[in-house]
Amino acid sequence: MTPEEFRLRGHTVIDWIADYQERVETLPVLSRSKPGELRAALPEEPPETGEDFEAVMRDLDELILPGITHWQSPNFFAYFPANASGPSILGELLSAGLGVQGMLWATSPACTELETHVLDWLVGMLGLPEKFRSDGEGGGVIQDTASSAALCALLAARERATDFLSDEKGCDGRLVAYASTQTHSSVEKAVRIAGLGSSNLRLIEVDDNYSMRPDLLAKQIRQDREAGLVPCFVCATVGTTSSLAVDPVPEIGRICRDEGIWLHVDAAMAGTAALCPELRQINDGVELADSYCFNPHKWMFTNFDCDCFYVADRAALIRTLTVLPEYLRNRPTESGAVIDYRDWHIPLGRRFRALKLWMVIRHYGVEGLRHHVRAHVALARELAGWITGSEDFELAIEPLLNLVCFRHRGGDDLNMRLMEELNDGGKIYLTHTKLGGRITLRFSIGQTNTERRHVEDAWRLITETADGLAGD
Amino acid sequence: MTPEEFRLRGHTVIDWIADYQERVETLPVLSRSKPGELRAALPEEPPETGEDFEAVMRDLDELILPGITHWQSPNFFAYFPANASGPSILGELLSAGLGVQGMLWATSPACTELETHVLDWLVGMLGLPEKFRSDGEGGGVIQDTASSAALCALLAARERATDFLSDEKGCDGRLVAYASTQTHSSVEKAVRIAGLGSSNLRLIEVDDNYSMRPDLLAKQIRQDREAGLVPCFVCATVGTTSSLAVDPVPEIGRICRDEGIWLHVDAAMAGTAALCPELRQINDGVELADSYCFNPHKWMFTNFDCDCFYVADRAALIRTLTVLPEYLRNRPTESGAVIDYRDWHIPLGRRFRALKLWMVIRHYGVEGLRHHVRAHVALARELAGWITGSEDFELAIEPLLNLVCFRHRGGDDLNMRLMEELNDGGKIYLTHTKLGGRITLRFSIGQTNTERRHVEDAWRLITETADGLAGD
Repeated sequence: MTPEEFRLRGHTVIDWIADYQERVETLPVLSRSKPGELRAALPEEPPETGEDFEAVMRDLDELILPGITHWQSPNFFAYFPANASGPSILGELLSAGLGVQGMLWATSPACTELETHVLDWLVGMLGLPEKFRSDGEGGGVIQDTASSAALCALLAARERATDFLSDEKGCDGRLVAYASTQTHSSVEKAVRIAGLGSSNLRLIEVDDNYSMRPDLLAKQIRQDREAGLVPCFVCATVGTTSSLAVDPVPEIGRICRDEGIWLHVDAAMAGTAALCPELRQINDGVELADSYCFNPHKWMFTNFDCDCFYVADRAALIRTLTVLPEYLRNRPTESGAVIDYRDWHIPLGRRFRALKLWMVIRHYGVEGLRHHVRAHVALARELAGWITGSEDFELAIEPLLNLVCFRHRGGDDLNMRLMEELNDGGKIYLTHTKLGGRITLRFSIGQTNTERRHVEDAWRLITETADGLAGD
Repeated sequence: MTPEEFRLRGHTVIDWIADYQERVETLPVLSRSKPGELRAALPEEPPETGEDFEAVMRDLDELILPGITHWQSPNFFAYFPANASGPSILGELLSAGLGVQGMLWATSPACTELETHVLDWLVGMLGLPEKFRSDGEGGGVIQDTASSAALCALLAARERATDFLSDEKGCDGRLVAYASTQTHSSVEKAVRIAGLGSSNLRLIEVDDNYSMRPDLLAKQIRQDREAGLVPCFVCATVGTTSSLAVDPVPEIGRICRDEGIWLHVDAAMAGTAALCPELRQINDGVELADSYCFNPHKWMFTNFDCDCFYVADRAALIRTLTVLPEYLRNRPTESGAVIDYRDWHIPLGRRFRALKLWMVIRHYGVEGLRHHVRAHVALARELAGWITGSEDFELAIEPLLNLVCFRHRGGDDLNMRLMEELNDGGKIYLTHTKLGGRITLRFSIGQTNTERRHVEDAWRLITETADGLAGD
């Protein structure tokens, strides 16, 4: 494709996306596609010769789009927001156009330096501890997801606890990791990947707010030490997936410090709220953490993937993950004056993801970002008020930020039927979890373009649909 | 950013990239930026209020671009190609615009089904064994990199060898992995991450062609078994990073089959060559592999990241990596009729990467892709001829595909000085390795727009620069 053809086709694609943004609100949020439906419509064999761009765009509309669940719809209230924005999409586009590899500083200095710079900015923007800045002994890096960040944190913890011998000799089955029963499943996945074994992950019970009980954590650590095991890693969550519960990081942090255990804080979605000084109490205790992550690709208007992962001691992380073959040797690396991000995560190659984050921050400004976060939190509180005021519904827990957990008083079956009918209807999409053993509906507010009217309409639809079901 | 503003800014960015494509050939390939130079030019604090888009684009030109090493320059001959193309960039743009999460089939059926479909197409396009198709017991998935693919293969191997007990009980230090001295560093990284320990990675010696010696592999496996260890994983490489050497996969495969060891084949760059029937002998023996990967983001005109990873037994991979919390339960998953790709790799979230691969295949067609691969291979052979015909230079090894490894006869120091002078000059960029203990220059041909004139000009520059150095 020549530059001239790219220019022409590029304008077409930009227009298509702008049109999509205008109409996404009218599309069924949850795709109605059936398993195998798209595959049956695609040719069995790839084309021998090149096809027209128009044919591809036609298939995009006719075949692909019906198979899309619209995460960018303002009526998407499922899972978590994966909110994108204009500047972020254009940052991703520029990154693809430049097509650089940022594995080493030398392979594109701007890719590394802009990332370090923007991640230092975010330390200040979120009121995170200074030790996570790159001008001390710490620093930040963009990972694909909080899952990968948790794995990297665990690996560094594993090595620190074994004086970097696990990397060499392998795991010995005595290392133990801790999380709560509400911690994201990625921590169990990480514990298995890193060779600790899921039986060496202790899931600590939570209190009535679904927050980890530090007394039980301390007790479990004590028991494990007495059994000759080696506690090495605790994951505390700021904003759990199920209910946005916040673990008591100050207490957990003190335990970890006293015990010499690596503390990782996972604030994947909720972390963004710390942009607002009045919500910044969610960061309490993070100064005791060895590592921290949050995802701009959830609630900070930056399209996937973009997880910001910070460590207080970058040397431990780098020593855990570095391998330096001859073909990667270069003068800047040997000078010691630069960061080579390949040693900060699992993949070697990496694209220029800082560009989109930089463009988002510059487009919105810190105040602009705060404005949207505040609006989402206010909407969640308003919805919680409507729920509290209704006869048929109840809150499962008071919403802290932008996630409203609630249920119909009619029991688990009714709640599941309600959710399925709502999702099948296509007007909104929401998902469920279990809290206290009971089915709970999750209403997550954070899509970039969600406004009051979307939440109002959704609540009306929920109550009307519930009335219909209850009358069956 | 409203859809209308996005449309306007989007056209600007598309034009910027088209202009970049037109002028990239004239820019210094290796960035001349000094450590800290970009950071010093960026404001210390993020903006409080939003900035104009024009200001961002101005900084892109004035601050970012000088810090870019131009992987998309036709004069980029370093490392490996990371070639992008118009359809691929537009596919990435569409993926960002749709902004879907493909973690579950249900969270966007098209994201999963298009991926499965295109990966099945590629099995046929590359002449890979049918067992890697999704309609049997195998299947393919897009990973970010070959590093992550190797890690996932190793994890599944670890579990198969321990009857899925390592996931539960942790590694026990008896598992052993095998690769050659020429294998990519990502395998050592994977062995460390997975808890086997680097001391349990055996680097088997190579023959004069830098290919793994199967006799030494068999001997080492025997010794390890006699020592009470558990061989579980062999990585064979089709196209090593240093010299594009091909391990004898048929012999290695027979050993692995006899010993019940998981065989992973890493064809990260070279794999693309199998598009051409006359080059397909590189796939010999792959029918004996348990897993296989190659990177369209290297030599198949698809911007990073896009590694295609295949397994013969998807159940083993899924069982290794799956965790199913309540909040991810959904009807299609429970029906068993769909693929949920979150269980095929480390991250949970995933973007719609199949879109760009689909657009590349449709734009070029199979014949179009072959045409470019053949042209690159022909250029490499032509360059090899010029080297053989010169007095001062020699080939380090006969080029199999698109990588030419050569050296000046003047010794290691001269070769390093030559490379540095060439790279500092900005007209071309190439990198080095060590082969047989000697510094060797690598000239990798694969950028989408590299033509004969670029290779001719580069060779002229290399010989003239060497003459200048030798005359010093």
